[in-house]
Amino acid sequence: MTTATQTLPVLEQLETFRQIVGAQYVFVDEEVLYNYSHDETEHLSFLPDVVIKPRTPEEISAIMKICNRYGIPVTPRGGGTGLSGGALPHLGGVLLSMERLNTILEIDERNLQVTTEPGVITEVLQDAVKEKGLFYPPDPSSKGSCFIGGNIAENSGGPKAVKYGVVKDYVINLEVVLPTGEIIWTGANVLKNSTGYNLTQLMVGSEGTLGIVTKIVLKLIPLPKYDLLMLVPFQNLEKAGEAVSAIFRAGFTPSALELVEIDALKITAAMVGASVVAVTEDTAAHLIIEVDGNNVDVLMQEMEAIAELMVQYEGGEVYFADDAQQKAELWKLRRRAAEAVKLEGYTIEEDTVVPRAELPALIHGVKELGKQYHFHSVCYGHAGDGNLHIRIKKPGTQNSQEDPEIQTAIRALFELVRELGGTISGEHGIGLVQKGFMDIMFREAQFRLFREIKKAFDPNNILNAGKIFN
Amino acid sequence: MTTATQTLPVLEQLETFRQIVGAQYVFVDEEVLYNYSHDETEHLSFLPDVVIKPRTPEEISAIMKICNRYGIPVTPRGGGTGLSGGALPHLGGVLLSMERLNTILEIDERNLQVTTEPGVITEVLQDAVKEKGLFYPPDPSSKGSCFIGGNIAENSGGPKAVKYGVVKDYVINLEVVLPTGEIIWTGANVLKNSTGYNLTQLMVGSEGTLGIVTKIVLKLIPLPKYDLLMLVPFQNLEKAGEAVSAIFRAGFTPSALELVEIDALKITAAMVGASVVAVTEDTAAHLIIEVDGNNVDVLMQEMEAIAELMVQYEGGEVYFADDAQQKAELWKLRRRAAEAVKLEGYTIEEDTVVPRAELPALIHGVKELGKQYHFHSVCYGHAGDGNLHIRIKKPGTQNSQEDPEIQTAIRALFELVRELGGTISGEHGIGLVQKGFMDIMFREAQFRLFREIKKAFDPNNILNAGKIFN
Repeated sequence: MTTATQTLPVLEQLETFRQIVGAQYVFVDEEVLYNYSHDETEHLSFLPDVVIKPRTPEEISAIMKICNRYGIPVTPRGGGTGLSGGALPHLGGVLLSMERLNTILEIDERNLQVTTEPGVITEVLQDAVKEKGLFYPPDPSSKGSCFIGGNIAENSGGPKAVKYGVVKDYVINLEVVLPTGEIIWTGANVLKNSTGYNLTQLMVGSEGTLGIVTKIVLKLIPLPKYDLLMLVPFQNLEKAGEAVSAIFRAGFTPSALELVEIDALKITAAMVGASVVAVTEDTAAHLIIEVDGNNVDVLMQEMEAIAELMVQYEGGEVYFADDAQQKAELWKLRRRAAEAVKLEGYTIEEDTVVPRAELPALIHGVKELGKQYHFHSVCYGHAGDGNLHIRIKKPGTQNSQEDPEIQTAIRALFELVRELGGTISGEHGIGLVQKGFMDIMFREAQFRLFREIKKAFDPNNILNAGKIFN
Repeated sequence: MTTATQTLPVLEQLETFRQIVGAQYVFVDEEVLYNYSHDETEHLSFLPDVVIKPRTPEEISAIMKICNRYGIPVTPRGGGTGLSGGALPHLGGVLLSMERLNTILEIDERNLQVTTEPGVITEVLQDAVKEKGLFYPPDPSSKGSCFIGGNIAENSGGPKAVKYGVVKDYVINLEVVLPTGEIIWTGANVLKNSTGYNLTQLMVGSEGTLGIVTKIVLKLIPLPKYDLLMLVPFQNLEKAGEAVSAIFRAGFTPSALELVEIDALKITAAMVGASVVAVTEDTAAHLIIEVDGNNVDVLMQEMEAIAELMVQYEGGEVYFADDAQQKAELWKLRRRAAEAVKLEGYTIEEDTVVPRAELPALIHGVKELGKQYHFHSVCYGHAGDGNLHIRIKKPGTQNSQEDPEIQTAIRALFELVRELGGTISGEHGIGLVQKGFMDIMFREAQFRLFREIKKAFDPNNILNAGKIFN
């Protein structure tokens, strides 16, 4: 909780905020403040001074002008599913919830584009375009509750990224309210653009520190007609990692290629009440492999060829998901893994990413570090992209920030990641909890560029200040 | 030619430059200066004071430190195939040719990545990875002579972009010498990255104004085994445009979908000595349609389905390219169109891009503007992306900059493009010749961001200053 002295400037503006958005959308009661004090990041919580729920870019612009003038911290927030603390109001001030900007404005079937507001839930958007035979692939595990605006802030990925790319590959134009209150468009509604610096891609992944996205134009593609799914067990975790790389080298591009360590699968299965398929005593991990396309015979051939290839990497008996229900069950086991293992005490999540073929070395390194620094880990993630989520449990520790030994261990892990050619976040962002490790990836020259870019957008450093870097 | 007073600072440093790169790589004789005074942009020419050909990032860093200290203008140059004047040394000073940084450093078959220097010719790179069964898709028409570094500066596209994306979709990490002489890496060698602001994508398409790219890490994909190619004639140019959009709406994603107006085809055929196929008296334009993939039967079915669809849009008799030679001939006709029509006096090239379904409206608008402003035009380009190249001829005019009526006409054209949701450059960049039209796309808020970003990278405004914006 911030002190009275600190809250004075923001509380003096409450009446103005009420005039801008309507009194019913300005909240100062403790219950609401508490609800917006945390997201899915470990167990961190910071109370804002006020929660505001605007409806339009113009309202947001008016709020930003006030905050910019009086130096009031502003933290934008989407669905609250973030894993790096990007939406946490750690400096108090205004929490700006985007939940009322929740309209899909236009599905342009002629041009295969959708224009949407940022507060639309990702799955709602995907279902809406699917009805028109169109496909927006990026699908983070939290797709049922995260907002598309938050996906843009974090440059989210998800299982389909391995074939279809991440959020940045679909965003073609953004309407943004700058911290100064100016409203701009970053680009144009086109598939190719060499017209000035790429402000669109600078916004994507900037974690709400450069501006507040209020309209989003996304590229869509035709919806593939068929997909096939299989689960392959491995006795050896590193062999599973080797198999991943082999699939691409053989010329296949699966539409999903996920790795789930056995503990994650078991914990999740227990939580959702599913029977775990294809598990023998000595199973260490599974690969979940999906192919999609418009010709089911071709897909069958691909699946069989991939299954044969897996045998060379000591893959066990393959389980094919036969129908929509079996596929949905399998995906549920994967998608709910983070939630399940978190409930089991694995509260700290790392989002490492390495070149795909270095996955076995990363997995090996994680387990070695666990022995050295006394933590348990379970790994799962988007193996096809080299993106491994590592959930950490150390008895007595809930937050990575609290425990010096965990901080040392994470630093060692991230240094390994860098040595392998990788980086410390693939799709969750840096936010608050990874900020202290950015020096592993960048030197003063890059930090200077980051700071100067931030200053160009936000001269008074009011918007989500103190996230990503200092 | 610059005056003696202006050249003084740079000429005083010649001895230092010679010490840095070796005397044989510092040129001040007029013939060399002239050779580096122009590129493929209209008939513009500006002499540099000195041409330097460094070999290493460290040499470039040393040169930049000198130039930064003494305020000497530096213009980086790739293959000299640019169409917007980005590599023209319009302020004199140092012309920095990247031609000696021409080594492919590593083809990483395990991770499907290539690390290369910027002075490698695009086609050389493509052929080198092809030998390993890998594919780097972006292929500008100038691929036989342009440099991969120049492609990154302009965010180039080419015919394959419609299925595979443009340069930005393949660049994952860059080594960059900043104008201050600092050497940085922008990212990591990974497929997904949410670690700080996207400096990689800020560099791509920045036209050599933010830094000098010295190493490039590109994502590769498995090489498709087969491709099929056909040519479809249309009597009505706008109907051809409508057909383009219909192909995607029907769920097909061709690997190339090009439009060539009949005059461009005839002029090019005459130049290269090819017989023009599938041309009847009343042909107005052709679509060149390619599909690729790993199953030839599926591709045949796709081709037939697309051919049937074309009939609905008044497409004429389809010509299928039967073998590699026929395919190569057809592509030659498309690729050499720009060169051929330029020789015929169409010296001014515009690089408009609109949402795909707006192509007929754009084509109609171009022809109307031609009548109004007394210019002839031929259109060709990457119709699948909505990217239309418009070559303009007006008797007595070689440079768009020279003729006030052409300037007015281009402004009217670009305003139409903006109204259609498009932008003024899809893949050629803004450089020098489109700079005066940037106010059509952007307002002061965006220009302020551009200027501040430029200043963050280049505080003394020495690197390719006066390009893109003022």
